[in-house]
Amino acid sequence: MTIKLHCFGESGNSYKAALPLELSGLDWSPVKVDFFGGAARTPEFRAVNPMGEAPVMIDGDIVLTQSGAIQQYITDKTGKFGGGAADKYEVLRWVLWDNHKLSSVAGMTRFLMNFLPAEKRPLEVIGFSQGRLAAAYSVLNSHLEGRDFIVGDGVTNADFSCCSYLYYPEPFGFERKDFPHIDRWLDNIAALPGWKHPYDLMPGSPADRA
Amino acid sequence: MTIKLHCFGESGNSYKAALPLELSGLDWSPVKVDFFGGAARTPEFRAVNPMGEAPVMIDGDIVLTQSGAIQQYITDKTGKFGGGAADKYEVLRWVLWDNHKLSSVAGMTRFLMNFLPAEKRPLEVIGFSQGRLAAAYSVLNSHLEGRDFIVGDGVTNADFSCCSYLYYPEPFGFERKDFPHIDRWLDNIAALPGWKHPYDLMPGSPADRA
Repeated sequence: MTIKLHCFGESGNSYKAALPLELSGLDWSPVKVDFFGGAARTPEFRAVNPMGEAPVMIDGDIVLTQSGAIQQYITDKTGKFGGGAADKYEVLRWVLWDNHKLSSVAGMTRFLMNFLPAEKRPLEVIGFSQGRLAAAYSVLNSHLEGRDFIVGDGVTNADFSCCSYLYYPEPFGFERKDFPHIDRWLDNIAALPGWKHPYDLMPGSPADRA
Repeated sequence: MTIKLHCFGESGNSYKAALPLELSGLDWSPVKVDFFGGAARTPEFRAVNPMGEAPVMIDGDIVLTQSGAIQQYITDKTGKFGGGAADKYEVLRWVLWDNHKLSSVAGMTRFLMNFLPAEKRPLEVIGFSQGRLAAAYSVLNSHLEGRDFIVGDGVTNADFSCCSYLYYPEPFGFERKDFPHIDRWLDNIAALPGWKHPYDLMPGSPADRA
């Protein structure tokens, strides 16, 4: 049975689930959430996901939301991306850190700077968030010094989480050249066989609305 | 061997780990992080936790940060608070949701409103964050209608995560009376044998600095 992932290209949170689905070799297909058309706020979508968020994964009777939970499901099903036996807590720790400090703030800041009309942008919020993000980039960059991936020797859910918003072209204050270890690590992930950019992996991109 | 939790009373993230440690019956003791004295930024603390955060759990050779990872460690060690066999992803989903949407924003907003000098408070950030929090409280309140706990019939790590900032007296925009299901659920958690308020469970409170 094909796993369905309700997602959209602009969503880094969706990418956190779509990328391991793609790289795992599982049979899956994306279903576009028309987020910018308000689909995430419709009663139909809320019935599947009361949190009103994307992604939503549907595998037969199993319906899951929150990308980190979907990642764990993929790992349990395939044995991939969970790291070695000793790495379990370290992977979880970085997934949580990402949800707390990196992608939650990056996703919001990118939204405010690129997907809101210029006159509605809350500039103090954007500046404040960029300050918090600078601290997060710095923590990640320091950790990646001398490492190819965040935990252990291969790619894990920690990488899929933390990279989620960092491949997007829309400006939100992150410059790869300022963080050389992050820059190199993003290239390591992109070099994995089958890797795709978010806009190539999932339906929907700013080009659709241009 | 006694588990040490480096924590401080004002930290809801610390409370997420301290409360299950206390209720699990494990042998543990808190070690005060003098956060307001700058301890989290010292080289000594950064050596234990490069993310510069509290809590940090030390159990023999095992050093763990991120409250959600510590919760999973406690669950693995005791068999408690993980819910039933079918609940694993649901518990993880709410822990992640909390890290993403609730406690990360609530903790920051409470900090800005109570622990920064009045003239340094970024009012636009506070207002924006309170708007995001209102949506999160609403999601949680709706979910708790007709339920005693977030997942299944007993307390889990989902509850310990989501409640973490909601017992504090310092104002940050959350009023229990506005969310009757949250209000009842907080009473359910507080009625668990051995429950303690954050300021009674961990060292450090605003009263120390008054």
